[in-house]
Order: sequence, then structure tokens, then C-alpha cells
Amino acid sequence: MRILVTNDDGIVAPGIRALVEVARQFGDVLVVAPDSPQSGQGHAITLNRPLKLRKVDIFEGIDAYECTGTPVDCVKLAKNILLKNESIDLCLSGINHGANASVNIIYSGTMSAAMEASIEKIPSIGFSLLDYSFDADFSAAKVYAARIIRRMLDQPMKECKLLNVNIPACPANDIKGIKVCRQADGTWVEEFQVGTDPRGEKYYWLTGKFITFEPPEKDDNDVAALKQNYVTVVPSGHDLTYYPEIENLKHLETIS
Amino acid sequence: MRILVTNDDGIVAPGIRALVEVARQFGDVLVVAPDSPQSGQGHAITLNRPLKLRKVDIFEGIDAYECTGTPVDCVKLAKNILLKNESIDLCLSGINHGANASVNIIYSGTMSAAMEASIEKIPSIGFSLLDYSFDADFSAAKVYAARIIRRMLDQPMKECKLLNVNIPACPANDIKGIKVCRQADGTWVEEFQVGTDPRGEKYYWLTGKFITFEPPEKDDNDVAALKQNYVTVVPSGHDLTYYPEIENLKHLETIS
Repeated sequence: MRILVTNDDGIVAPGIRALVEVARQFGDVLVVAPDSPQSGQGHAITLNRPLKLRKVDIFEGIDAYECTGTPVDCVKLAKNILLKNESIDLCLSGINHGANASVNIIYSGTMSAAMEASIEKIPSIGFSLLDYSFDADFSAAKVYAARIIRRMLDQPMKECKLLNVNIPACPANDIKGIKVCRQADGTWVEEFQVGTDPRGEKYYWLTGKFITFEPPEKDDNDVAALKQNYVTVVPSGHDLTYYPEIENLKHLETIS
Repeated sequence: MRILVTNDDGIVAPGIRALVEVARQFGDVLVVAPDSPQSGQGHAITLNRPLKLRKVDIFEGIDAYECTGTPVDCVKLAKNILLKNESIDLCLSGINHGANASVNIIYSGTMSAAMEASIEKIPSIGFSLLDYSFDADFSAAKVYAARIIRRMLDQPMKECKLLNVNIPACPANDIKGIKVCRQADGTWVEEFQVGTDPRGEKYYWLTGKFITFEPPEKDDNDVAALKQNYVTVVPSGHDLTYYPEIENLKHLETIS
């Protein structure tokens, strides 16, 4: 059983070390991860410059490579160059430092790497812990990641190939259980930090806070379940078609 | 009526010039676009460095800014900094040099910029011409873009806020009409160009070809309709939940 592990926080992040420790219980692990933090890189791929891979010896007994590209580049290089298109049985991404619930799946390099593998029909799971700090405590996240991987190996997904797993930032004993649910509707409200650089030019530095559009009584979404200390699992895809609207828009076909 | 125009090929690309010429027929146009090509940047946002905006005078009588960030950064800066969160009535992105049918919506900076606006509930349309060349002929694309924008202003979308429009690379007379359809299932088969850099290090440069998983008899998807010289319109969203799988995965909730 061959398992590819990647992330977006970079190959030296404690979160990927935690995930490697979990993954090695289940099979042969190959790590290919960015050589620098790539949070917010979404599904970016590198087209206008070449990429490098460098073998690194930081996980005992595990083949690991750092890559100069994005998280999605890492998956493409692992599959095509390192594994020469031999099959990958499972792709694990994370454990991300910070939540990837709701619309964050679109901005997240961690989830986009997992999604890239799922586009190739590889069963893939992205894990995220609701704690942005570098020295976050991954002990509960490791327990739940192992449980979820074990179950998904026993009962594999059929059509869907991607799970978005978020884990509350609390001790394992305080976690209420697992909820399988949908992605919450939400967005980021931007708050650019505005400043002046050493050459006197104005700059804008992106920050912001996440808000949900979900009414408080709805508890079938990941943001609501995480607030109640559940681990959330959102089965996810990459078909962005808004199906209910196809019929409503048929009038466009009458334009001449 | 305020219209935001952006793209991923950069502010000097002929495609955005074509789109500005169309957009100005419908309202007050603000252009905010990357200062360099950003193809394949997907939904990337810039978190680890500040961004710059520079006013440029390249579209007669139109306010335009080039931005050092990604296409999604452009939308965020336009909304938050330049328009100070005043409302935007329509966001147009493109016209992209090259197709954004099927799964390319996920990799495309052009579509991701439009999607970013749609997340903010702004009606948004991304336009792409099936011709990658810099000197592509945008005349048919301009005709269809204008027709589609006019109709969408007359009959606005309700819940869905994003259209993915692809235009075949042929004269307007050869276009068979418009098809409203779903995103085709497909993927990219990577073919890295492998070389050695001036310092003797190996590099990998991403390329590849697109393949569709759709059976040839299916004509309800964008790739099939484009092959028949239809302009395709795919209503699109950002909810990636794979709904049919939620029930199938409820067994995960029994893990203890």
C-alpha cells in the first residue's frame, strides 16, 4: 500500500510530521511537500518557471522530497516523476495548521493538493487542525486521523474520492465525535493592512476574518459542527457545475 | 452600473482589452488586473508578502490598475481598497487566451477571479477563447460576450452567481449557437519537460495534455459542445460538497 503525504505549510511544519507518523502505520509512505509555506495557494500550478525536487532526510526511514513549487505541483511531481505514474493508493494532506472548513477548501493549498490527487481518482483526505500556531498540539488530530484512515481503508469510497476533515483544537477527550456534513456557506471579510514601504510606496497586506452565512439553527454544516467540538468530514468533489441553474438558463440558447 | 474587469493573462493581454471594449457598452468600468501573466494560479491569494497597486493609463477613459498579486488578489483589492466596499454590479474576467472548460475552472486564474466575486454574491462571468496565442482573434468572442452580458442583465441569475463561458476559436459565422451545459469530467495528463539548469541541477517544467473521461455519445458537457463549435455556458458555484456521499459516509459517525 503506497501513501503519498503532502501539505501546504511546508515540509518542516509539525503538522506534516504528525501526519507522517500516522500514515506510516498503514503502508509505504512517500513525502513530497513544498520547501516553503504555501498557505492560500489554492489550486495554483507553476507554468512559467521550472521546478526542483530535493531529497531530504528528516523523517526516519521515509523517502521525502522538498519541492520548489505549490502543493498541487508536489502531487503532480510525485505521481509523474518520482513514481513514474505507478499507482498511489492513498493521498493524505496536512495536518494543516488552521481550519479549512467552509469555502476555505478553495483557498487552501492543503485541500487543493488532496483534490489534485482525487481528480486522478486517488482516494484522498485532507486534514486540518483549528489552530494556526506553529507549536499546535496535534495529539487529538493524530488519533482521529488514524481512526478515519483505518475506516476508509476498511470501507472505501465509491464515486467520491476526497474528504475534507477538520479537527477542533481541544484535547481528544473533549471531542464529541465525528459529523459527516456539508460545507458551510461563508466568506472572508477582507481587512488589508495598509502601509508604506522603505521606498515610500503604499502597500496592502491581506488579512481578514471569516464569516458564515449559515443561520444559527442549521447544524448540518462543518462550521456549526466544529463549534460544537465535532470532527467534521465533508465528502468533496471538483465538479463546480451549479446544476439547478442549467434549466433556468436555457433561455440563453435562444440568443442569436 | 459598476463593472469590474479582471483576468489572469495580465493587464496588457489583448484578451482583457477586448473585454473592456465590450464592458464599456454596459456601464462604468474599473479594471484591476495582474501586472504579469498569472495563468494556472487558480484561487491563490497572497498572504506572506504585501501587494502593490499602480494606476495605468492604457484604456482610454477607463480607470485601470495593475496589481502585483494574483487574479483573486485583484478582486479583493478592487472591492476593499479601490471601491471601499461600495457595490459592484457585475464582474467580468478574461477574455482568457485559452480554454477553461471542464476541470480547468479549478486551475484557471481567470475563472477563480470571477468565482471570488461570485462568493461575494456579485454576478460574475468568466470568458475564455479556445486559442492560447497572444494575437488570437477575439472578434467572435466579443460578439458573444456582449450578447450574453446583455441577456444576463435583462434576466439576472437568482441563486447562482457565476457563469463559465468558453468560445470556440472560429469566425462568428461558424459558431452554431450557445449551449448551457455542465462541466465535463476530465483531467490533465502531465508531461514534465526534464532538463539541467546552468548550475547542473535537474529541473522539471510542467506541461501536459487535457483528456476527457466523458463517453463520446454524451453531448451535455462543455468539452463536447465546444467540439461542435458551440459557445458553452456552465453555471458554476463554489460548494464542493459531494452531496450523494454524505449518507454513504454516515458510518464514520459510529467511530469511537
